[in-house]
Amino acid sequence: MKEVRIGIIGIGGMGTGHARKFLAGEVPGARLTAVCDINHDRLQWATKNLDDELETFEDASTLCEKGSVDAVIIATPHYDHPPLTIKALQSGLHALAEKPAGVYTRQVREMNDVADKSDKVFGVMFNQRQRPLHQKVRELIASGELGEIMRTNWIISTWFRTQAYYDSGGWRATWRGEGGGVLLNQCPHNLDLWQWMCGMPNRVRAFCGFGKYHDIEVEDDVTAYVEYENGATGLFVTSTGEAPGTNRLEIVGEHGKLIMENQKLTFERTRQNIMDFSRNAGTSFGTPECWKCEIPIKGQGEEHLGVLKNWTNAILKGEKLTAPGQEGINSLELSNAMLLSAWIDDWVELPVDEDKFYSYLKERIDNSRFEKKEVKESQPVDIEDSFA
Amino acid sequence: MKEVRIGIIGIGGMGTGHARKFLAGEVPGARLTAVCDINHDRLQWATKNLDDELETFEDASTLCEKGSVDAVIIATPHYDHPPLTIKALQSGLHALAEKPAGVYTRQVREMNDVADKSDKVFGVMFNQRQRPLHQKVRELIASGELGEIMRTNWIISTWFRTQAYYDSGGWRATWRGEGGGVLLNQCPHNLDLWQWMCGMPNRVRAFCGFGKYHDIEVEDDVTAYVEYENGATGLFVTSTGEAPGTNRLEIVGEHGKLIMENQKLTFERTRQNIMDFSRNAGTSFGTPECWKCEIPIKGQGEEHLGVLKNWTNAILKGEKLTAPGQEGINSLELSNAMLLSAWIDDWVELPVDEDKFYSYLKERIDNSRFEKKEVKESQPVDIEDSFA
Repeated sequence: MKEVRIGIIGIGGMGTGHARKFLAGEVPGARLTAVCDINHDRLQWATKNLDDELETFEDASTLCEKGSVDAVIIATPHYDHPPLTIKALQSGLHALAEKPAGVYTRQVREMNDVADKSDKVFGVMFNQRQRPLHQKVRELIASGELGEIMRTNWIISTWFRTQAYYDSGGWRATWRGEGGGVLLNQCPHNLDLWQWMCGMPNRVRAFCGFGKYHDIEVEDDVTAYVEYENGATGLFVTSTGEAPGTNRLEIVGEHGKLIMENQKLTFERTRQNIMDFSRNAGTSFGTPECWKCEIPIKGQGEEHLGVLKNWTNAILKGEKLTAPGQEGINSLELSNAMLLSAWIDDWVELPVDEDKFYSYLKERIDNSRFEKKEVKESQPVDIEDSFA
Repeated sequence: MKEVRIGIIGIGGMGTGHARKFLAGEVPGARLTAVCDINHDRLQWATKNLDDELETFEDASTLCEKGSVDAVIIATPHYDHPPLTIKALQSGLHALAEKPAGVYTRQVREMNDVADKSDKVFGVMFNQRQRPLHQKVRELIASGELGEIMRTNWIISTWFRTQAYYDSGGWRATWRGEGGGVLLNQCPHNLDLWQWMCGMPNRVRAFCGFGKYHDIEVEDDVTAYVEYENGATGLFVTSTGEAPGTNRLEIVGEHGKLIMENQKLTFERTRQNIMDFSRNAGTSFGTPECWKCEIPIKGQGEEHLGVLKNWTNAILKGEKLTAPGQEGINSLELSNAMLLSAWIDDWVELPVDEDKFYSYLKERIDNSRFEKKEVKESQPVDIEDSFA
């Protein structure tokens, strides 16, 4: 294959953003040839505003089966990511799913099973893995520089959203339409990075505020405590109700601590392993010598464009995926566990009991009495402001 | 009264520090006349090294009843603070208790009842309330500048201690001798400041590591989640196992957030109340205008000396106490709730069920099989290095 013919399923905010990159020729080896949306107006808008030669489909199955594309990007509401990915892979197409991988892990596990059996390239849009800053944090841990992890702590409250945001789409912030709130919509990146850097915890005890700061039924405020296999503890704090918000990741290890904040990475590195120091120091007070190191970070990374290029190159040249689709389940596992823990007001062991989570989610969907007062279905908003 | 005659009960690390201040004439209106310790060697050491005219007592009751002092400072191990304070007040003496107020709230409530009925001045050594930095945080909340509190978060892990520290005294870090670990010994200041600034929460869910980083039986690692009356949430994270440690307090309100870190106070202040902005903004994204304000802090405060002066002036001139003794119960209430929550692996409502806490503590004392391998009872260590 010399050129990958791309179709985009769901031409809303994210889909439009991706489309523009292809149409501007920013992804070598890839050409956007089709768009698909259940909303006819959106398709009209796309041919008028993006490219009038685009083939349009109102039905994803038809797109997948017609043979006019080699690969699809799935940028629909969350619930549809797994079935559409499965449809694409089973139709012999490569697939790139927007985050989150899905809404509940049972659904995503089915998708992963299909992907495992497929020879197609399956990626997930974890554009933040493209950032050199995030790659460096991961590398300092993986290389052993930080030593054994003792504690992780991410306060990520830079996801402020107005009530107007939640009112802007009927599916938003409902159990039926989105299946969750800040954990499902805003935090998949952070949850993915957290586990990508620090590993998956063993168990979760979380506390959620549902509609705490907005007139919505899903969570807009979360505090989650986790425990890891090696005994380390962790905290993840997020909210869409705070401004200006905080984005501060602190990871403590036996050789000091990493702090990622304000796009900078600081490593306060102890010369000695601190557990060794504690055991062997003859004095009661004092701490091991510590160097405050500013870790150099080169560039910003290409974000979404980087993922599109990486996925395209994986299809054309077998390049290794930075974010294989099957890894999308990890962040979802975390958010499912956090919601379930809040619902049952108790610990949740990982991996999450998939059927239990689904039954609790289903109950919320069935019992939802939430009606949007005034749904303002509109042209996709400019999402460029929305990335923390 | 023109001059307050002071006795110090417990002439260990803290007691010696206070004694030196009186003997150096740093507390106008107060004169150290007596010291008391159950350890005869310590008394000999005191008369030899501090002042050979000091009257010495091996028994606190005798000191309290003999009439040679007007006021006592209680600087013994924690368990003895309440009974000795009660003894002093009932003997007609003013009292200043070291922190923590005691080990369990039932004991401290009895002390407070006696204090309520007494006309003597009862203070507690919360020297960190003397710091202008801490006073400013409190003032910005109390004055309404920050707006309604939404979230509090204190990471205070600058309490690193070596194994040698825990081995330096037989009472240290045992249920019987100290009644707790980092919460009882290192954190009373932080817990007091937290509630002094932000108020007391309604309920607590905490997670403790017992002997996680040291060969001890009590907690040396804590993560506590709390909820306040107004719906705000909070986190308190501490450890004696981390180096270099973090001391960062973040308080989020409806007018932005306060960050206290590295002896600086930053107020990221939104021009508009963020809840109002959220409700009324017509756009989905965007946040209210926010000013990053560096809040001026004047001076360092007088710490222990400030408390000694304030208490002396309260006795002599009726000056208002910065830290009334009866307020010592609040930080203890918090630490008792955190321990109990970890023990029962469940929520603890405040105020803590005092009998329940005591029975769980008693069980740990009775079942303790912890024996210090090598107790190095020594001259008091230099504690000047020990304050975070």
